[in-house]
Amino acid sequence: MKFGGTSVADLERIRRVARLVNAEVQAGHQVAVVVSAMSGKTNELVAWTDRAGAAAPGLPSSDDEYDVVVASGEQVTAGLLAMTLRNMGVPARSWMGWQIPIIADDAHGRSRIDDIPPEKLGAALDAGQVAVIAGFQGVTRDGRIATLGRGGSDTSAVAIAAALGAPCDIYTDVDGVYTTDPRIESKARRLARISYEEMLEMASLGAKVLQTRSVELAMAYKVPLRVLSSFVEPGEAPGQGTIVCDEEDIVEKRIVSGVAYSRDEAKISLFGLPDHPGVSSTIFGALADANVNVDMIVQSKARTADTANMEFTVGKRDAQRAVEIVRAAQPQIGFEDVQVNDDVAKVSVIGVGMRSHTGVAKSMFQALAEKGVNIQVISTSEIKISVLIDAAYTELAVRALHAAYGLDQL
Amino acid sequence: MKFGGTSVADLERIRRVARLVNAEVQAGHQVAVVVSAMSGKTNELVAWTDRAGAAAPGLPSSDDEYDVVVASGEQVTAGLLAMTLRNMGVPARSWMGWQIPIIADDAHGRSRIDDIPPEKLGAALDAGQVAVIAGFQGVTRDGRIATLGRGGSDTSAVAIAAALGAPCDIYTDVDGVYTTDPRIESKARRLARISYEEMLEMASLGAKVLQTRSVELAMAYKVPLRVLSSFVEPGEAPGQGTIVCDEEDIVEKRIVSGVAYSRDEAKISLFGLPDHPGVSSTIFGALADANVNVDMIVQSKARTADTANMEFTVGKRDAQRAVEIVRAAQPQIGFEDVQVNDDVAKVSVIGVGMRSHTGVAKSMFQALAEKGVNIQVISTSEIKISVLIDAAYTELAVRALHAAYGLDQL
Repeated sequence: MKFGGTSVADLERIRRVARLVNAEVQAGHQVAVVVSAMSGKTNELVAWTDRAGAAAPGLPSSDDEYDVVVASGEQVTAGLLAMTLRNMGVPARSWMGWQIPIIADDAHGRSRIDDIPPEKLGAALDAGQVAVIAGFQGVTRDGRIATLGRGGSDTSAVAIAAALGAPCDIYTDVDGVYTTDPRIESKARRLARISYEEMLEMASLGAKVLQTRSVELAMAYKVPLRVLSSFVEPGEAPGQGTIVCDEEDIVEKRIVSGVAYSRDEAKISLFGLPDHPGVSSTIFGALADANVNVDMIVQSKARTADTANMEFTVGKRDAQRAVEIVRAAQPQIGFEDVQVNDDVAKVSVIGVGMRSHTGVAKSMFQALAEKGVNIQVISTSEIKISVLIDAAYTELAVRALHAAYGLDQL
Repeated sequence: MKFGGTSVADLERIRRVARLVNAEVQAGHQVAVVVSAMSGKTNELVAWTDRAGAAAPGLPSSDDEYDVVVASGEQVTAGLLAMTLRNMGVPARSWMGWQIPIIADDAHGRSRIDDIPPEKLGAALDAGQVAVIAGFQGVTRDGRIATLGRGGSDTSAVAIAAALGAPCDIYTDVDGVYTTDPRIESKARRLARISYEEMLEMASLGAKVLQTRSVELAMAYKVPLRVLSSFVEPGEAPGQGTIVCDEEDIVEKRIVSGVAYSRDEAKISLFGLPDHPGVSSTIFGALADANVNVDMIVQSKARTADTANMEFTVGKRDAQRAVEIVRAAQPQIGFEDVQVNDDVAKVSVIGVGMRSHTGVAKSMFQALAEKGVNIQVISTSEIKISVLIDAAYTELAVRALHAAYGLDQL
């Protein structure tokens, strides 16, 4: 069981979590619980590190110490939940990353889990003790605290489930994975099941239910994953939630499972590029060297002469840096102009059914055209189609697509 | 160097601490720094554990999980100070109790340090790195976090100094040890030196500068100790503070070094006790079994018949429990009445000079009599005399004694 920050935001909610854990124990299960920091705590800690670590250029990184500070939030919650469980008469103890140990690499602040020897946890579970595990943290091979990046507690939970050979229930503030964001489309429906591949696309395309890496890990180790709500009243059982599983385990096939959107994109346009080989590799090589992630890319021949235009998208917060990098390469590349537009949104439809069905793209473009939504850039994969549009049309586009694929009829 | 909670209360103060550390590094010293939690943080964490751990009687103790929660405060400060030092160009890293390790026993919440292998810390110091150590915490032999009790960071600092064979500077919000509390007597003077024995009495008699156990430890391992202020402006050096050392290292001998007071006492009076052997052992045996600490004791023959009266003091928060224990033993002991008075204060004069000087008690009683202060109970040791008085006379008594021994003339 994994509980996020809003589920453990205060002592009343921690008690609610303890009741859910106790219900599993009473049902005869061995339980390992992974907890996040109380919501708001991580932000407070990060703000302190920002102020302490406002480094002059050239000074050494303090990412290892950042990890020491921010990992303390999960430690607090783990201790408090273990205490609360004991007060309900449920044997429990807390486990820090270094105690299990959750061995992680030394890429501090975005560390990856290397190994979780299951012996100690397994022995405690076999002894009838609930293991309350601080999420988000591991320990490097030389004994330093390492954190797994924002949302890393999901990854902790899936990795521990894999190590123990157990299924993983992710409790959050929504009762499952929806066909789209219910704040935009009130007709959005909870999905009973979704495949790992679809969940992965949804997570990386803007749905914030699960951290992308945790889904990758669940898929790789075939960990049965379930998303469900911790916000239930005492005595009430949590709902069925959404099961994330192998495609083969989904009986009722759909062509499209969901509509995702993201407003975190910015579009960069280059005009008047010389149309010869090597231009793209110069531009994207420079961006990759600077760790700027490029998402969608289109290139088109200009109407006149031998030049081309190119458009690509990057994360909004990388936009200014991307432009500077491109400008610095201008003498070498020789384009005419560069423009940024961060008033854009990416809207995507996702579904494994696309693999065997044609016409999905056609219905998408038709539905958008009917509402007068102009498509700026298109990108596709085997199981998703994304379009970049004017940000003002986001909600309109999401609702139009949700209806076009019959998602309100599930 | 050790810095308490008020010295690291926010990021501006942490920067001030970093400047003091840097000054020591620039002076060519290897530096280990022990830090407390930011002031207020430990109280916040303790309040949470109180609410999470509001145990029904008969449920197992959660002291081990209490330790997990409250130890997180020092972890935060250690990380932030290490970051701040690096940003000043000072190589530094944080150390948690389990990383050094500071091996402590499993009396959670009031654990004692068993051992500190100096190898890892020593290697880091030799490599030119400042070691920033989370105070107040250790790790048990089976790998659980243990805390050392309130004020335990002083003990951490002295123990680490002993392990490294280094002197220990305790930075706090006052600039040394005073002849008495300056908030009561404006003529109180900072002592240049004080003996371990005197400091020990002062600490246990109410002066809150140092945790008693840290002084015991310093005395046992002959760690040169200094108390000084962290509240200095940038560029300014901290003052001389007060050196706590062996009696032989104090040239200028005084008969009395200081006047301490405590309002944490309550007096319990038993009337009409049968005057035969075994009564005291029954009473104090029962109190000891219940972990109630008894301080001063006097017994006197009643004017009439074969009965005696007895008075003793306990900590204020134990008073009610002590009365209940005594009442429960009434059938066995057979006294007539028991009364509690918690409107009392204990005022003490302390000085190693008493060992070789007579008349110290006489001057004390005389000074108090001149001001009309009635003495209820007296207790003495080799180097201190304590009297219990009506709490309303506390300040008056402290000032009268401070003047009587010429402490304002130092």
